[in-house]
Amino acid sequence: KHILTLPGDGVGPEIMTGAKAVLEKIAKDFNHEFTFEDGLIGGAAYDATGTPLDDATLERAKNADAVLLGAVGGPKWDTIDKTLRPEQGLLKIRKELGLFANLRPIKVFDKLIPASPLKETIVSGTDILFVRELTGGLYFGRPSERRDGGNSVVDTLIYTKEEIERIVEYGFQAAKLRGGRLTSVDKANVLESSRMWREIVDAKSAEHPEVKVEHALVDSTAMKLITNPAHFDVVVTENLFGDILSDEASVITGSIGLLPSASLNSEGFGLYEPVHGSAPDIAGQNIVNPLAMILSAAMMLKYSFHLSEEAEAVEAAVDNALKDGIHTPDLDFEGGRKVGTEEMVEAVMSYIK
Amino acid sequence: KHILTLPGDGVGPEIMTGAKAVLEKIAKDFNHEFTFEDGLIGGAAYDATGTPLDDATLERAKNADAVLLGAVGGPKWDTIDKTLRPEQGLLKIRKELGLFANLRPIKVFDKLIPASPLKETIVSGTDILFVRELTGGLYFGRPSERRDGGNSVVDTLIYTKEEIERIVEYGFQAAKLRGGRLTSVDKANVLESSRMWREIVDAKSAEHPEVKVEHALVDSTAMKLITNPAHFDVVVTENLFGDILSDEASVITGSIGLLPSASLNSEGFGLYEPVHGSAPDIAGQNIVNPLAMILSAAMMLKYSFHLSEEAEAVEAAVDNALKDGIHTPDLDFEGGRKVGTEEMVEAVMSYIK
Ligand SMILES: CC(C)[C@H](C(=O)O)[C@@H](O)C(=O)O
Ligand SMILES: CC(C)[C@H](C(=O)O)[C@@H](O)C(=O)O
Repeated sequence: KHILTLPGDGVGPEIMTGAKAVLEKIAKDFNHEFTFEDGLIGGAAYDATGTPLDDATLERAKNADAVLLGAVGGPKWDTIDKTLRPEQGLLKIRKELGLFANLRPIKVFDKLIPASPLKETIVSGTDILFVRELTGGLYFGRPSERRDGGNSVVDTLIYTKEEIERIVEYGFQAAKLRGGRLTSVDKANVLESSRMWREIVDAKSAEHPEVKVEHALVDSTAMKLITNPAHFDVVVTENLFGDILSDEASVITGSIGLLPSASLNSEGFGLYEPVHGSAPDIAGQNIVNPLAMILSAAMMLKYSFHLSEEAEAVEAAVDNALKDGIHTPDLDFEGGRKVGTEEMVEAVMSYIK
Repeated sequence: KHILTLPGDGVGPEIMTGAKAVLEKIAKDFNHEFTFEDGLIGGAAYDATGTPLDDATLERAKNADAVLLGAVGGPKWDTIDKTLRPEQGLLKIRKELGLFANLRPIKVFDKLIPASPLKETIVSGTDILFVRELTGGLYFGRPSERRDGGNSVVDTLIYTKEEIERIVEYGFQAAKLRGGRLTSVDKANVLESSRMWREIVDAKSAEHPEVKVEHALVDSTAMKLITNPAHFDVVVTENLFGDILSDEASVITGSIGLLPSASLNSEGFGLYEPVHGSAPDIAGQNIVNPLAMILSAAMMLKYSFHLSEEAEAVEAAVDNALKDGIHTPDLDFEGGRKVGTEEMVEAVMSYIK
């Protein structure tokens, strides 16, 4: 299997090194061959090539079996032309590869319940899979422009029926593989796109009677994620709502440094990246938590390579390392042993059997 | 002063009765005359007139000195034509009266800190004023329609420069009257409207050097409201972001039953309503918390009638009643005396001096 690695900016390179080491170990123990090829994205790409993602890299991504991405962005590039900012590289690769299904599992690790900003009784049992639409809506709708000589501005929330259908279908399939419950989030009391979304969910619901569906408004969901996060199983929603709600949900676990994500296209091709950002303030200090990147690599094993056993070996190793109290400084742990990024990676490797 | 009261649906009539009683008491004690006129909005209006807000009521609102609104909506009207649903009455009155500035103070009552879903150390000290733009953006932008024979759908996020300027200016003014800090929330890494919003905030910032301004992304803000809500002073943002974030913030206080709101136009005319909804499941049982409606009436005294002393008398009465442990069943109180809606209203009245 051939993997394109795009470390990106800030802590990206450090966590990518960690994920590669873990994958090498898996390859050795389970008798696979993974080949890696490094590419540039984000600010690093801008500095080297003048654009946050060049076409050659995009071509290499298309030819790889999967893409691992670290993180992009940083204050260094805050003032450059908006079309060249690091995030544009991320938006471009998502769009060009058709990665419409963004999966963000939000799971509370028992050991980290005390680190949650929420009360223990509320957060415990939380295990949500966000299925976020990633290539449509306000992110890519046109027109997106100034008008009347700069006196007004417009962005466009646009979806085709097909775009909604495929992500909603993905939500139903995901619910079947999990707890059988699907929450579809919209703003149907205001938006026409949400009303169409709701109709499509209702139609699909008839095709999947074994899934229990509920409709929820985005504002109510923002509340319920705090008052009763354990209520949710699979949440399916459009791009911007998914961005806001999955980030909101990510912090209730007590560490965003543990959360992976997968972005898939209709052929099952995927890009895998941690939910956290490039954290330039802590880059290069050997203190960043590599687990979100490592768990993103585990998602790659599962979703792109169908190596479930290997994926579970990685997840179990992470789980066991945390259970034994080994953790990077970002985790607010009672007891345990605080280690650096490299030692954390080694610990995970030593737990893989 | 002449007040149009629009009780609306569900618990609306009960809480409106409570707010009126408190206002009568204020009128008596402070020697004012308030006259009330009842009107219909929402499902109640639909049932009586076939529309959720008729033009005659709108006319009466324009001629009143202020409007008090209870709540609208309920399952009874879920299946009627979308243009006639209860919420449309609310959206119409906001738009027709030009109520562009929606103020939502989110304050933690000491007695209720234990009822917050957040840990005490995190929630304590939270005191935020949301300034939400209320008559623009995706809520009212056109086109908002199906296309290609129902094969696609579009909503439009549109703002004029003036619309952004006036709400941002409001944010700066509010920050000056409070802690002097303003967080402007946008999604400038994706939306052109957010980039224009950010430019306007920067320009205004030069005019108001005494206010400390920060820009924040909507997704990061959704996280920070949970990890560090005490960070915020005034938050200014566009319509939909304000809807989601102010609702998210509302639950961290431990009771949405205490939160008021004001919606003002450029002449200072205002409509006042609780943040909570119509709660049809508990309507008519004398158990709904009337305090959000009563505190909304206090905001009316302050913002529309410039009766600060009277507003503070109401707020102090609510505070003192809670301090003495008197509360409706929605509040998760340690100790204290549980009472019904009417008794809660009487308690507040008895604390006004
Ligand atoms: C960097 C930004 C454009 C991106 C998004 O909004 O999708 C990020 O917040 C994310 O969620 O991956
Ligand atoms: C009822 C609905 C249209 C409304 C809104 O979205 O503005 C409500 O959620 C609010 O915040 O007042």
